[in-house]
Amino acid sequence: MALNNPTPLGPWKITVYDQENFQGKRLEFTSACQNIMECSVDNIRSLKVECGAWAGYEHSSFCGQQFVLERGEYPHWESWSGSNAYHIERMMSFRPICSAVSFSPKSTQNHKESKMVLFERENFIGRQWEINDDYPSLQAMGWSNNEIGSMQVQSGAWVCYQFPGYRGYQYIMECDRHGGEYKHYREWGSHAQSFQVQSLRRIQQ
Amino acid sequence: MALNNPTPLGPWKITVYDQENFQGKRLEFTSACQNIMECSVDNIRSLKVECGAWAGYEHSSFCGQQFVLERGEYPHWESWSGSNAYHIERMMSFRPICSAVSFSPKSTQNHKESKMVLFERENFIGRQWEINDDYPSLQAMGWSNNEIGSMQVQSGAWVCYQFPGYRGYQYIMECDRHGGEYKHYREWGSHAQSFQVQSLRRIQQ
Repeated sequence: MALNNPTPLGPWKITVYDQENFQGKRLEFTSACQNIMECSVDNIRSLKVECGAWAGYEHSSFCGQQFVLERGEYPHWESWSGSNAYHIERMMSFRPICSAVSFSPKSTQNHKESKMVLFERENFIGRQWEINDDYPSLQAMGWSNNEIGSMQVQSGAWVCYQFPGYRGYQYIMECDRHGGEYKHYREWGSHAQSFQVQSLRRIQQ
Repeated sequence: MALNNPTPLGPWKITVYDQENFQGKRLEFTSACQNIMECSVDNIRSLKVECGAWAGYEHSSFCGQQFVLERGEYPHWESWSGSNAYHIERMMSFRPICSAVSFSPKSTQNHKESKMVLFERENFIGRQWEINDDYPSLQAMGWSNNEIGSMQVQSGAWVCYQFPGYRGYQYIMECDRHGGEYKHYREWGSHAQSFQVQSLRRIQQ
């Protein structure tokens, strides 16, 4: 049957452009790209996610600032960074987030849930809290301060944010990376400079 | 009993500072502020939401860019704007979002739900979709394009975003304003320039 379909889409598809507003050179990907410069593109200036959830990175080889990219249109840097803390406007590599669970209506009880345990201190020490839902303000839900010490992702993929309301630096946490264990902010990504996390949510696709 | 408590907090509290990182002149509010300059402050450069959900505005009298502010710490402009589309770094007025519903664990069935109807075209015309949950990507959930024509908020308060993943311009929609009816993007706020909405979520407090 597959032979009858010359362009199978697969579960992931992203289209990137080397100019803003979906202009300039256009490239389609259905799997990871470790360095966009190897595709003769200096930088990505706009993109469309057509299928699946993706992680975008500031530098090649999936390093630097992280950006969760869900289905939709991103016409310029600010549309996916959500932060101008840096003024380096780059996205050099990206990959599918394979462990992101499927969107499911609430009435469906048989879908796979996202689960994570938050710990007050690094190395899985201190007060802990198991979560399986989105939290635009951790403090409003009873978490005592503006930091999380460590995290264990038991299923699915999550994105944590520096500020409330899903703003600031993003940290993508996945059950199938690091064994799902993030015991210090140094393991959250090379851009992480503190334990500050004030909102977090599941990544669904 | 209330007399025994000299500083009743009430359901809303926000502390604002005229310098970044919670420095400089400090003011506490438990209700709306129409013009921060009337409190002898030129501009707000950092803030802490201690109770409730608030709407912040770029200009006095609740005009210009809108920012939903939930419990937590916002040390500088980028931490609440989530956008650098403008380079005017201002927040001149703010008010409680009275219709935001309470956070409730999923197991509680008697909490008041947030409900909204999305319409494909302006003036409540075309395909419609009733929602009561958060949508980081409307397209991933089956909405056909990157625009919403009009909206009817039936209960609670919502924040709509220009881009997927809760990024870009924010539009705060409430059941107790405009009769909950937002029939054209011109009614979303003075900063709205198009029908583009790619993610939205409930405001809870």
